[in-house]
Amino acid sequence: MTQDPLVIFTPSGKRGRFPAGTPVLTAARQLGVDLDSVCGGRGICSKCQITPSYGEFPKHGVTVRDDALSEWNAVEARYDEKRGLAEGRRLGCQATLQHDVVIDVPPESQVHRQVVRKAASTRAMVMDPATKLYFIEVPEPDMDEPRGDLERLQEALAKDWGIGALDAPLPLLRKLQPTLRKGGWQVTVALHKDHRDSAHRLIDLWPGYHEGRLYGLAIDLGSTTIAAHLTDLRNGEVLASAGLMNPQIRFGEDLMSRVSYAMMNPGGDLEMTRAVREALNQLAGDLARDGGIEPEQIVEAVFVCNPVMHHLLLGIDPVELGQAPFALATSDVLTLGAADLDLTAANGAARVYILPCIAGHVGADAAAVALSEAPETSEDLALIVDVGTNAEILLGDRARVLACSSPTGPAFEGAQISSGQRAAPGAIERVEIDPVTKEPRFRVIGSDLWSDDPGFSEATATTGITGICGSGIIEAVAEMRLAGLMDASGLIGSAEQTGTRRAIPEGRTHAYLLHDGTADGGPRILVTQGDIRAIQLAKSALYAGARLLMDERGVDKVDRVVLAGAFGAHISPKHAMVLGMIPDAPLDKVTSAGNAAGTGARMALCSVEARARIEENVGRITKIETAIEPRFQEHFVNANAIPHATDPFPHLPDLPDVSFNTGGAAEGGGRRRRRRA
Amino acid sequence: MTQDPLVIFTPSGKRGRFPAGTPVLTAARQLGVDLDSVCGGRGICSKCQITPSYGEFPKHGVTVRDDALSEWNAVEARYDEKRGLAEGRRLGCQATLQHDVVIDVPPESQVHRQVVRKAASTRAMVMDPATKLYFIEVPEPDMDEPRGDLERLQEALAKDWGIGALDAPLPLLRKLQPTLRKGGWQVTVALHKDHRDSAHRLIDLWPGYHEGRLYGLAIDLGSTTIAAHLTDLRNGEVLASAGLMNPQIRFGEDLMSRVSYAMMNPGGDLEMTRAVREALNQLAGDLARDGGIEPEQIVEAVFVCNPVMHHLLLGIDPVELGQAPFALATSDVLTLGAADLDLTAANGAARVYILPCIAGHVGADAAAVALSEAPETSEDLALIVDVGTNAEILLGDRARVLACSSPTGPAFEGAQISSGQRAAPGAIERVEIDPVTKEPRFRVIGSDLWSDDPGFSEATATTGITGICGSGIIEAVAEMRLAGLMDASGLIGSAEQTGTRRAIPEGRTHAYLLHDGTADGGPRILVTQGDIRAIQLAKSALYAGARLLMDERGVDKVDRVVLAGAFGAHISPKHAMVLGMIPDAPLDKVTSAGNAAGTGARMALCSVEARARIEENVGRITKIETAIEPRFQEHFVNANAIPHATDPFPHLPDLPDVSFNTGGAAEGGGRRRRRRA
Repeated sequence: MTQDPLVIFTPSGKRGRFPAGTPVLTAARQLGVDLDSVCGGRGICSKCQITPSYGEFPKHGVTVRDDALSEWNAVEARYDEKRGLAEGRRLGCQATLQHDVVIDVPPESQVHRQVVRKAASTRAMVMDPATKLYFIEVPEPDMDEPRGDLERLQEALAKDWGIGALDAPLPLLRKLQPTLRKGGWQVTVALHKDHRDSAHRLIDLWPGYHEGRLYGLAIDLGSTTIAAHLTDLRNGEVLASAGLMNPQIRFGEDLMSRVSYAMMNPGGDLEMTRAVREALNQLAGDLARDGGIEPEQIVEAVFVCNPVMHHLLLGIDPVELGQAPFALATSDVLTLGAADLDLTAANGAARVYILPCIAGHVGADAAAVALSEAPETSEDLALIVDVGTNAEILLGDRARVLACSSPTGPAFEGAQISSGQRAAPGAIERVEIDPVTKEPRFRVIGSDLWSDDPGFSEATATTGITGICGSGIIEAVAEMRLAGLMDASGLIGSAEQTGTRRAIPEGRTHAYLLHDGTADGGPRILVTQGDIRAIQLAKSALYAGARLLMDERGVDKVDRVVLAGAFGAHISPKHAMVLGMIPDAPLDKVTSAGNAAGTGARMALCSVEARARIEENVGRITKIETAIEPRFQEHFVNANAIPHATDPFPHLPDLPDVSFNTGGAAEGGGRRRRRRA
Repeated sequence: MTQDPLVIFTPSGKRGRFPAGTPVLTAARQLGVDLDSVCGGRGICSKCQITPSYGEFPKHGVTVRDDALSEWNAVEARYDEKRGLAEGRRLGCQATLQHDVVIDVPPESQVHRQVVRKAASTRAMVMDPATKLYFIEVPEPDMDEPRGDLERLQEALAKDWGIGALDAPLPLLRKLQPTLRKGGWQVTVALHKDHRDSAHRLIDLWPGYHEGRLYGLAIDLGSTTIAAHLTDLRNGEVLASAGLMNPQIRFGEDLMSRVSYAMMNPGGDLEMTRAVREALNQLAGDLARDGGIEPEQIVEAVFVCNPVMHHLLLGIDPVELGQAPFALATSDVLTLGAADLDLTAANGAARVYILPCIAGHVGADAAAVALSEAPETSEDLALIVDVGTNAEILLGDRARVLACSSPTGPAFEGAQISSGQRAAPGAIERVEIDPVTKEPRFRVIGSDLWSDDPGFSEATATTGITGICGSGIIEAVAEMRLAGLMDASGLIGSAEQTGTRRAIPEGRTHAYLLHDGTADGGPRILVTQGDIRAIQLAKSALYAGARLLMDERGVDKVDRVVLAGAFGAHISPKHAMVLGMIPDAPLDKVTSAGNAAGTGARMALCSVEARARIEENVGRITKIETAIEPRFQEHFVNANAIPHATDPFPHLPDLPDVSFNTGGAAEGGGRRRRRRA
């Protein structure tokens, strides 16, 4: 008696014997091999393509004959004719096992494949989305078995896909009967179920086999900017990204001023809720247009945001977040319908997932950074800083992860800066100042040339030079300190003190003239004493938060620093450390994670497993409340100077020993002397 | 060593030993004794009142000492002082076990008690509602454990009430924080969970202990009338009832004409959906006003309706219900939010339960009748007829239940009748005609007097005599046949043929003058030949449906007949049988169930268990489709005569052997001769 054919799947290595004539897809399913299929084996979707291998496989101990699989059949021939089947490929639902065979499942035929995104972040996305397409054939109605169309659809889903309970919103029930009849009782349904749901939910349906793609929005809802990525739910690719100023800025630039607005103005919280929801609709509409898709194809949205943005998005008055004990209305994950958030520029049945908040001041954005950067898996002690209007700070390794947030204010985003602007073409983003001549050179967003390169004027003619963005102001201030234009207390010296006419009087203080575009009708771009103070406040808050976590952990240095945030990618590690934004570390151990919160949002959008992981991890993160911690104030005050009054930065070169304080006693000079504490 | 005290609860008989000092409520819960509590044992709600018994109980084998329970405590004293505690009563959460004791749980302290309603139906309602109140104390927020208020609420519910997952709609999340703080971290929540839900759902919340009542609407959404009962979810009492004409009537009087309207007019189905939803809001608002409650206290609604009304309520085009195979979009139970149906005159978080449809022509109204009348528990074979614009017919016993519906049209509701009107004050509802003088006497709704009683004119002066309602026309037609004013074919005789001047010419036929109010400025109320034809069509359809079920069951008689429906209570069994509306049965075996569909709706509103029961039973009912069954036509034709051409009615007296057919051969005479088949 001959044995049943043996099938070995690669790369999984799963193997088993099946009766001759078993379709490859059936064998894969029974072995738990990850082989995709939308049509359930009907030869329609072509997602189950496989590559059989022939010949000797000593490693597997098999010889694969040329006739190991059934012959190419009519369905495969038709598919090849209409859409082309790559050389050596077969359809797993059509090819049947005849003899022992080794079968490779190519990456594009795996459901839970890792996809390397092409955009900024090269992070591999694991695809395991909550919303997927299923093609099914529904039995026709029968007067002797008078169940409804929905009930017969459910039975077909149970039989073909093992799907249990199904919730169907009324608007889709309205679509159900005409769709089934139009498709001749064949239908493609989009169903949603994440790890928290007990039932699948019908999201949309189309007659017959539907080729369309499903998309999700990964939204990083910041105090100052809202960034969103339109993401293909099949492969995680970002089809389009867009950003928008948060229109709530007109009610207050930072979180606490928005909370105050809500407290002082009855109904003010709802005004802010309306404003942000309108902006989200605009953003979703823009992205659909940019991506060339219909808004109805947007079937999911994932939000990450700080607790105040979180509550205002949800229509919850954030007043409790403005005072101790900073009680959240809800800290857990929320799953909602798009309609709950008035999100009309999406499928009416779209689902919304909002990451959990870690604490009253540590929000879903921090949770998203934790998901993206996974400090809980780090061998060495990592400090992860997500720089924004509010900084989210994580410190941890395999042993323990701590988190806090720190109210840096919007200076790092170019706001409250005299020539500040958001990062957009025309904004100065990189600055160098010659320590001898005190002359600057810079780059603006939109051109790779430095301002002293030939052709710079031509390259920037269309955008102009309009202002200075967050990364630009950090570099400018750090360079001013390195060039001796500013002393350790942050005072800008006069022309006499610094020896450059770029140091110009401004009221009772001085400013440094970075660029004068007035000859061409452009602006004068200055770094004023006020700008320096704003950056000092911001960087002190950021540093104090990090230092507080280090105290809690009982360390005075970290192994590595990860800069994250919308403009984290653009901050130069050297300049960040000159400013004292971050604790001392070897410069090659300061890396950028890009927009980690946005990446975390995309991960949660693409993977149900990622959602489960962050929900579990968030419960294990130790939260530190900066607002009521006396040591925070202490660290904050000590971090005001450049470099700090107390903390050493062995990895930095010495900074010029200058002092421009004209009144009273000179405040100590260089770093060596200052280290008095 | 002495044993722990023994406690015996009556009426349940449950018993157990508990350590001395155990509160009675705790013992009851551990034994699974049905003892109510809203406050969870905090001595606030007083729902857990019990009555201890003292002395010798040979039946239970115990002697109960006077000190079997702890002494009256301060909480009980305060409650007694403020609100009065009946003699012999204790609060189960305060009184603790000291020695062996027998404790009676009075009916009002039982959650799942049977309540005998005071209104029309004397049916006992089992109370087991899906929405209940819970009082809890929520831990205050703690910065070291920064979970949200909702999460701490959930933990308190889990701890005190064993409640698991909780869904909270956004508008209630908005209310949560101020409510908790206003109540000093004490809160009363209304939670909903029926047998199909995996989680409880937050419906409303109030600071501190909330005394308010929760209400539900039981709605019988008929083709012609919408009836609703505002029901107390604590005891099942109907606080107010109201009815309204279904405004969809302007789109078509019967079901098929509304389906046609939807087919002929794009968007016509949505017009009808809007119309009925507006009417429901009006009805809910009226009931809240009548009952003296706030609309927010309406937290549930249960709907029963036929399939076309069902689909139009849900916003689903009923077109498929107009043609074979009469496919429902969905046949299963639906649980929705009030907002899904635009039901704004209720709590925003109110839940809606819609009974399942049995088949494309046999709706949730038939399911409600089945729930109310429970034919599946009947020892003898019962025919249950719910008379309306569409008749729902059930035939069954313990062995098997069959169901169909029959398109009787609106004649039985007074529509399509020349002097017809809905049942309202001024409508003739009872008719007798003297077989000798051919003179009528009648009663009108709003007075108990007959028209030949002294004082009748005065009694009806305010309402007038305005028309004839459904039960009135049935009696009038049957009496006309009994008095020899009409022959077996339904022809009304002339004055010469009948010997009364009340038989007056009307066109080429005759009419019977029931009442002439013209002298007082009122209407002439006639029964015309057209009215007779309308009633003949309606009664033939009704009878043919019943006969079809009897054929299916293989019987030619039934043991008993139950008349249900909005006016089922008012139909006289004798007249119904004279007309041949129902099959022959002993007159004392023809009973009225009142508005059985409405009763079924109330049962589902009051009891989760009733919902589970009907869902299970509906799956077991055999559905018969009248529209495509050739025997239906045959029965319909044979049932046109009065009495029928074929079926015998041994329980009826002989009917006059008259014939008024003036053209062609006389159609046989009396009944004996007619029985030629």
